[in-house]
Amino acid sequence: MKKKDFPLDQVYGLLESGPVVLVTAARAGWMNVMPMSWHTMMEFVPPLVGCVISSQNHTFDMVRATGECVLNVPTVELAKKVVACGNVSGEFVDKFKTFGLTPVAASVVSAPLIAECYANLECKVTDRRLVSKYNFFILEVVKAWIDPRRKAPKTIHHQGEGIFVVPGRTIRLPSPKTSFLTK
Amino acid sequence: MKKKDFPLDQVYGLLESGPVVLVTAARAGWMNVMPMSWHTMMEFVPPLVGCVISSQNHTFDMVRATGECVLNVPTVELAKKVVACGNVSGEFVDKFKTFGLTPVAASVVSAPLIAECYANLECKVTDRRLVSKYNFFILEVVKAWIDPRRKAPKTIHHQGEGIFVVPGRTIRLPSPKTSFLTK
Repeated sequence: MKKKDFPLDQVYGLLESGPVVLVTAARAGWMNVMPMSWHTMMEFVPPLVGCVISSQNHTFDMVRATGECVLNVPTVELAKKVVACGNVSGEFVDKFKTFGLTPVAASVVSAPLIAECYANLECKVTDRRLVSKYNFFILEVVKAWIDPRRKAPKTIHHQGEGIFVVPGRTIRLPSPKTSFLTK
Repeated sequence: MKKKDFPLDQVYGLLESGPVVLVTAARAGWMNVMPMSWHTMMEFVPPLVGCVISSQNHTFDMVRATGECVLNVPTVELAKKVVACGNVSGEFVDKFKTFGLTPVAASVVSAPLIAECYANLECKVTDRRLVSKYNFFILEVVKAWIDPRRKAPKTIHHQGEGIFVVPGRTIRLPSPKTSFLTK
């Protein structure tokens, strides 16, 4: 894998547009991966991400127990695998083997990076106050990786009921305030 | 305005893909509007939305004081107005008049709907636990409106630094689980 360090203060740009991500977790010799769309940036530096992981999912227990996960950003070429990962439980199936995804050791957390995803964000759970009521974890991104060979990665965005959109044209409307849309 | 009721259990499909929204608020005879990208669905029914509104923004004080706002979903035709709304403070400027946006009375909350936006979500603040630390409000959508004439609305998605993407092609990958990507 030829991933490179990605600056933490630019992480928001990877997630703010709302792509589906693949959450990976590891615990007691077992790894899992699940798709997730319910996430938002909460701070630029250190980058904080809030996200809902259902307590019905195997991943929930793993993230809660270890306090760690990786958010992997897939592109449209992986769309079928992303959906497939959401249709079976990781309690019974090794999704990496079944769907041909390659786990790679992360540098800070125990959860694996997915080699096929163009960006990978190693995360630690930093606030659990809303976990019991909303299954809402606040994650701090402690290390970020990017595939520098991908110049215009096409993320996938879920509109519900198995309908996804892929980014089309780009609009540039520079603002005097970098963060006007977010803070 | 020919907006129609939109079912609350379908609201997640409007926001899950990560579009920029325009937040409106009203207080003491004054209205304001600001763009926002840092939001996520947190529950299907009742629809809950978590979002960050910076305490540096005029809107923050209005939402905190009234406990109400509207999330208006603009399409690409409004992109320049969206950016313009983010570049001035509503403390000094009537952005509705300045940028040619039409406020319409909501049915449940005091904040106005924006007529030009294809969907409008009337919201009440339902959980303030993370407001002081993260400026993070949890909103319940109590009433939703849609423009039925818009068949394939093109939302805008911020990638940071004034770069926006507009949805291009659509992929349909039906899943046996409606909510696999979200819960």
